[in-house]
Amino acid sequence: MNTSQRITQLREVLKTRNLDAAIIFNFENQYYFSGLKAITYSRPIILVVEENKQSLIIPKVEENHAKEKTDVDSLYIYQEVRNSSGESTDYKALFNDVLSKLNDNSKVGIEYSSLPTDFTMSLQSQGFEIEDIQQDVVDLRSIKSEEEIEAIKTSGDLVSGALKNTLENSSINASEVDIDYFGNQFLFNEISKKFTNSTLDYFVMSPSGIERTNMPHVFSNTRKLEEGDIIIHSRQVGLNGYRAECERTYFVGEPSEKQKEVFDVMLRAHNAALDFIKVGVTAKEVDEAALRVIREAGLEKYVSHRTGHGIGIGQHEEPYLRFDNDLELKAGMVFCIEPGIYVPGVGGFRHSDTVVLREDGTEIITEYPRELEQLIF
Amino acid sequence: MNTSQRITQLREVLKTRNLDAAIIFNFENQYYFSGLKAITYSRPIILVVEENKQSLIIPKVEENHAKEKTDVDSLYIYQEVRNSSGESTDYKALFNDVLSKLNDNSKVGIEYSSLPTDFTMSLQSQGFEIEDIQQDVVDLRSIKSEEEIEAIKTSGDLVSGALKNTLENSSINASEVDIDYFGNQFLFNEISKKFTNSTLDYFVMSPSGIERTNMPHVFSNTRKLEEGDIIIHSRQVGLNGYRAECERTYFVGEPSEKQKEVFDVMLRAHNAALDFIKVGVTAKEVDEAALRVIREAGLEKYVSHRTGHGIGIGQHEEPYLRFDNDLELKAGMVFCIEPGIYVPGVGGFRHSDTVVLREDGTEIITEYPRELEQLIF
Repeated sequence: MNTSQRITQLREVLKTRNLDAAIIFNFENQYYFSGLKAITYSRPIILVVEENKQSLIIPKVEENHAKEKTDVDSLYIYQEVRNSSGESTDYKALFNDVLSKLNDNSKVGIEYSSLPTDFTMSLQSQGFEIEDIQQDVVDLRSIKSEEEIEAIKTSGDLVSGALKNTLENSSINASEVDIDYFGNQFLFNEISKKFTNSTLDYFVMSPSGIERTNMPHVFSNTRKLEEGDIIIHSRQVGLNGYRAECERTYFVGEPSEKQKEVFDVMLRAHNAALDFIKVGVTAKEVDEAALRVIREAGLEKYVSHRTGHGIGIGQHEEPYLRFDNDLELKAGMVFCIEPGIYVPGVGGFRHSDTVVLREDGTEIITEYPRELEQLIF
Repeated sequence: MNTSQRITQLREVLKTRNLDAAIIFNFENQYYFSGLKAITYSRPIILVVEENKQSLIIPKVEENHAKEKTDVDSLYIYQEVRNSSGESTDYKALFNDVLSKLNDNSKVGIEYSSLPTDFTMSLQSQGFEIEDIQQDVVDLRSIKSEEEIEAIKTSGDLVSGALKNTLENSSINASEVDIDYFGNQFLFNEISKKFTNSTLDYFVMSPSGIERTNMPHVFSNTRKLEEGDIIIHSRQVGLNGYRAECERTYFVGEPSEKQKEVFDVMLRAHNAALDFIKVGVTAKEVDEAALRVIREAGLEKYVSHRTGHGIGIGQHEEPYLRFDNDLELKAGMVFCIEPGIYVPGVGGFRHSDTVVLREDGTEIITEYPRELEQLIF
């Protein structure tokens, strides 16, 4: 990915806001600006971007990785072993080193919703003025480049294929974990064949039965599918760090009449939002397009979450398609559309597809039938 | 898990430190104290513990989940949909609600290394005094109960079995992702058969070849194994939230003489630390037990990380087995022992096993041969 353009954009933010440096701590933002994604963050990583310099504070274990993936100007490496060369073993000392090279009274941009308290207190105790740049970074990340969209589309193909494999291998007495596995198997085979030198993140959950589908977020477990079960199969795939999401509500055996009714409302709400979303409308209008259908069917009281969310490096990222978000949507934004209806005693109902906004229309990049007849196995 | 005892212990910390409330934001700590683990945290969750009350600020989508898993006194639920009942749609407003019920000038304990800046600024602007309780929570979490140890041991059996399946199915032309998959398959089958209503987290990576084994943390990719390859296979399994780790350095085909030499040093260092660790020694003495072997072989300059880390809810958690950690080890602590040697042009070498400290000895809870002859496939 072309991180240099992103750094240029961040520097424009610094200039516009009269800031001397940005401290990037959130690991998704770090990946966006530096190209480096660590596997675990038990050892903190901090990216500092100034007008003419980028510094990365990093543990020794990530040194080679950082050299391969990033083109920062200075690596500040902290050791975990005693060493005669006097290299620091303390990331906080290195953080203070980087700060000490800033001018006194510098203004520093930080992510208020990510930077932990101890770093902020360091900044404040050294007399730096701080400002929140979270929204500026969100604004940059929300407009995807063509390169990013291509990456998300590749993940879209993979997630659709994985979902198909899970749905079409679902049967009575298979557990939630079992059915997830069919999709996983597809992913591993496919990626191993077609994408050399790639990394894979994936997320999957398949709550089944009336009670568990009413919990929008629960890990798959070993509950076995029963005749007539409703299932919400939800999957994300991130190839090389860029994600797409596809979800389907489906049945093993015949649904009840009441389930058919709610399914139909959910499907019409999903279609309404997918049809409506485009460049120039607002986030809240998309939310309303789905909710109107649900409200007219008398089911609004069973809605517990927003109609959708941005996706990219993050599983869920801004902009959110929420009733109170006035943001006007722009070309290059990518959303998951997923209105949900959760009716106690009947079940939870939610489809999700990933859609790219273009100047001249939209592109749904995940694919599997959405109609009830095709979702009974 | 018995969270009520943990809450009692946290309240003792509050009393001792003369604090009126603890704000728990770190999601591992939240799981520890409340029993609730969410799947994604794009919607913040905040646990507030006072002397006589526990409050949980939580998105609507987690309401049923929280009711099932926790026994907090008050759920503060934020909606994402407009609602006539006047429920809040803003977690920050709910956070301020909870704070408003504290006495003026209350002292509040927070996790300095986890709580994001915006919450801390809310606290400060409302005149609350803040103190760091991170270490107190670490101290509680580091001593595992018998119930937690049993959970970790179950994960230990699973991770050993998964590792065995990956190693014994490794062959030339299989990719890193392929070989990971054999272990995954074992896990899914095993868990589906034996552990009803369980959740599974797992992590796996298998950097292969000289260059990639020199990067201690890289995601598995589609590089295909070649004759004579060195591989570091690393896996963690967390059944129902409690983790164990097992790692082996192994070969597909015959290693070089130089590789045999470094392997032998790594193995002796690993054994030395496993033999040495026990209740009453310090963390840094364990680190030194491994390092001494490596130093005497003249390879200390190729060490880039600590000898080990605690494990439990966290992938890596305190206490760390580091040269500068004077902590005396206690019964109930659980560690991964994993000294590593990374020699450019030769390869990276690291085994890891998980060990439980008991008053009367240690219990290694992961199992796979560690000798070179048994690690050539």
